Amino acid sequence: MSSILDWKPKIGILGGGQLGWMMILEGRKFPFTFYVLENDKNAPGCKIADRCFSPQEYREFVDNSDIVTFEFEHVYDKALEYAEDNGKLLPRLNSVELKRERYKEKLFYKEHNLPTPRFFVAENGEEALKILKDEFNNTGVIKESKGGYDGKGQYFIFNDVEKYDFLREKKDKMVVEEYVKFDFEASVIIVRDKKGVFINYPPTYNYNEKGILVYNYGPYNNQEIVNVAKRLSEELDYIGTMGVEVFVVKGRVLINEFAPRVHNTGHYTLDGALISQFEQHLRAIIGMDLGPATVISPSGMVNILGTDRIPSEVLKYGKVYWYSKAEVRKRRKMGHVNVVGDNLEDVKQKIDKIMQLIYPNGLDL
Amino acid sequence: MSSILDWKPKIGILGGGQLGWMMILEGRKFPFTFYVLENDKNAPGCKIADRCFSPQEYREFVDNSDIVTFEFEHVYDKALEYAEDNGKLLPRLNSVELKRERYKEKLFYKEHNLPTPRFFVAENGEEALKILKDEFNNTGVIKESKGGYDGKGQYFIFNDVEKYDFLREKKDKMVVEEYVKFDFEASVIIVRDKKGVFINYPPTYNYNEKGILVYNYGPYNNQEIVNVAKRLSEELDYIGTMGVEVFVVKGRVLINEFAPRVHNTGHYTLDGALISQFEQHLRAIIGMDLGPATVISPSGMVNILGTDRIPSEVLKYGKVYWYSKAEVRKRRKMGHVNVVGDNLEDVKQKIDKIMQLIYPNGLDL
Repeated sequence: MSSILDWKPKIGILGGGQLGWMMILEGRKFPFTFYVLENDKNAPGCKIADRCFSPQEYREFVDNSDIVTFEFEHVYDKALEYAEDNGKLLPRLNSVELKRERYKEKLFYKEHNLPTPRFFVAENGEEALKILKDEFNNTGVIKESKGGYDGKGQYFIFNDVEKYDFLREKKDKMVVEEYVKFDFEASVIIVRDKKGVFINYPPTYNYNEKGILVYNYGPYNNQEIVNVAKRLSEELDYIGTMGVEVFVVKGRVLINEFAPRVHNTGHYTLDGALISQFEQHLRAIIGMDLGPATVISPSGMVNILGTDRIPSEVLKYGKVYWYSKAEVRKRRKMGHVNVVGDNLEDVKQKIDKIMQLIYPNGLDL
Repeated sequence: MSSILDWKPKIGILGGGQLGWMMILEGRKFPFTFYVLENDKNAPGCKIADRCFSPQEYREFVDNSDIVTFEFEHVYDKALEYAEDNGKLLPRLNSVELKRERYKEKLFYKEHNLPTPRFFVAENGEEALKILKDEFNNTGVIKESKGGYDGKGQYFIFNDVEKYDFLREKKDKMVVEEYVKFDFEASVIIVRDKKGVFINYPPTYNYNEKGILVYNYGPYNNQEIVNVAKRLSEELDYIGTMGVEVFVVKGRVLINEFAPRVHNTGHYTLDGALISQFEQHLRAIIGMDLGPATVISPSGMVNILGTDRIPSEVLKYGKVYWYSKAEVRKRRKMGHVNVVGDNLEDVKQKIDKIMQLIYPNGLDL
């Protein structure tokens, strides 16, 4: 009889932020060893890893790991590539490459007939502004192709095109996209294993402000979101947990973007589901069978952004996860609060309560 | 506005077994520092603590901690007493003292009119056997007063009194107790904070074999169990999480014993409840408000005893917690599997499945 404990893999995680931190906390229930590659030794993940490597030590980090994964796809390129070259990287580099340049991600959707807002690729800022005028009548979104996440490098233009003249100086590729008047934003957390087994948590309603997730809750049962995410994961032959963010417009689903990793909108699975997105990710990449992705309760999450003032009353409504980052900074994700409830309305009321308690003067993003 | 993050306590835990390990894992969501006092540096808790002290370093351990608690009440007496003398021990020593000698615990129940099986205190083994004969017609339970847990030092005698002649050599106090033909065993996890706020998880049905918990599940709604546990916690002016084990006999509740700590029958709260027994314990001892103790799903737990053979199919039914102890030993608690379900029947079926998978040849305890 074989045992799930027969293999005790050493798992390397690129990045020591909160996503890596939660991956390790969840993974401690198994006989795994965790290495983190991270510049900042005080990062949450470093503090609980078995060993924290500096970015310069990337070869040693990869050589010592059985499998390498990442909690953030925008850094440590050398390590990513060295791990891929050694056949240790999961999810594989093909997913990361789509995230390195936004236009590649958009072209991938188009090529595979995956629904996404109408867009054009511009060679530079000058051309982007021309496309915005010609194709979108000066109302739309211009996104820098490189390095965009959490709303960075995105410009929402509503006829006030003169304010964006500075874009003419930019010589890198841009994506010019229609402005989508969505009914709401949503996302789904999916997991796909090495044998191609696909599971999904139910989608959630998301509320973003200035490109940062503020809160989300579910289940929001929408099979179309699941279908689209499933097809995306299959086209990529993806292995691991993935978050897919969409706009819902009059019942239609348009992919906004995907994240080839555990995702902020899946934090609720730590409490709303038996098996969290983090544990499923670890199972997928080491080749363990996935668990059920059913949620056991309507649930949600509120991000703690740019503050460490958490009044005690919050504890009545939710469960606090504090990442213990060394410094509070504006817009920085400092922690989150998970919530469960009898139904969606109950969950939403608790979220509203927590929002009022954490941000008594409103959000400052 | 004050914040729950204003205080970043250093919490000392006596013992580095799985209970301390889960306390630390759950506590990592707060900005706490965890010290462990433990003989075995390879113990689960030591591996994830901020620092592991040896028993000889107990003064330094206590001096460095803001609060001292314990995951096991039967060892490290000097540390317990030094922490109590320094006003740092929670739960306080009065609860531990009742556990050091079983007869004190039983007398406490009697004195406070808390229901417990009929018993007598014997000065030694000789007297115990005489009481068994005179009061219980040679059928009952003789328990050594000192050091009894997980079924150690307990003798169930059914007229076969000649087999227990060796007890005549024992010169320590004993408890002689009626043999209770219970309908089932149950327990409740309660938490009481510094302000006297009392909360309880719903009781569970427990299945023990040879004095060791094998599995439990709930909710088993029985207000009498809660009432009895509440009164016990109040009589002790208890602070922290406590497990109270009872026999249910024709609707009557008799306390078998209590544990002044987080308890094996509360492991299900890691997944069946929003806030676990471990987090509540930490909140109680540091003076943070308790959270709701409602369960969000019928749930249960199976102990992994004396084996590391966990077939992959187990992952379909439950969530594995593996304590990564250095060595597998007979009767040793190596891990557990948490289960949730739509209803009690569903939970019980999953438990049965997991039992068959982990113990294909039956339990060997």
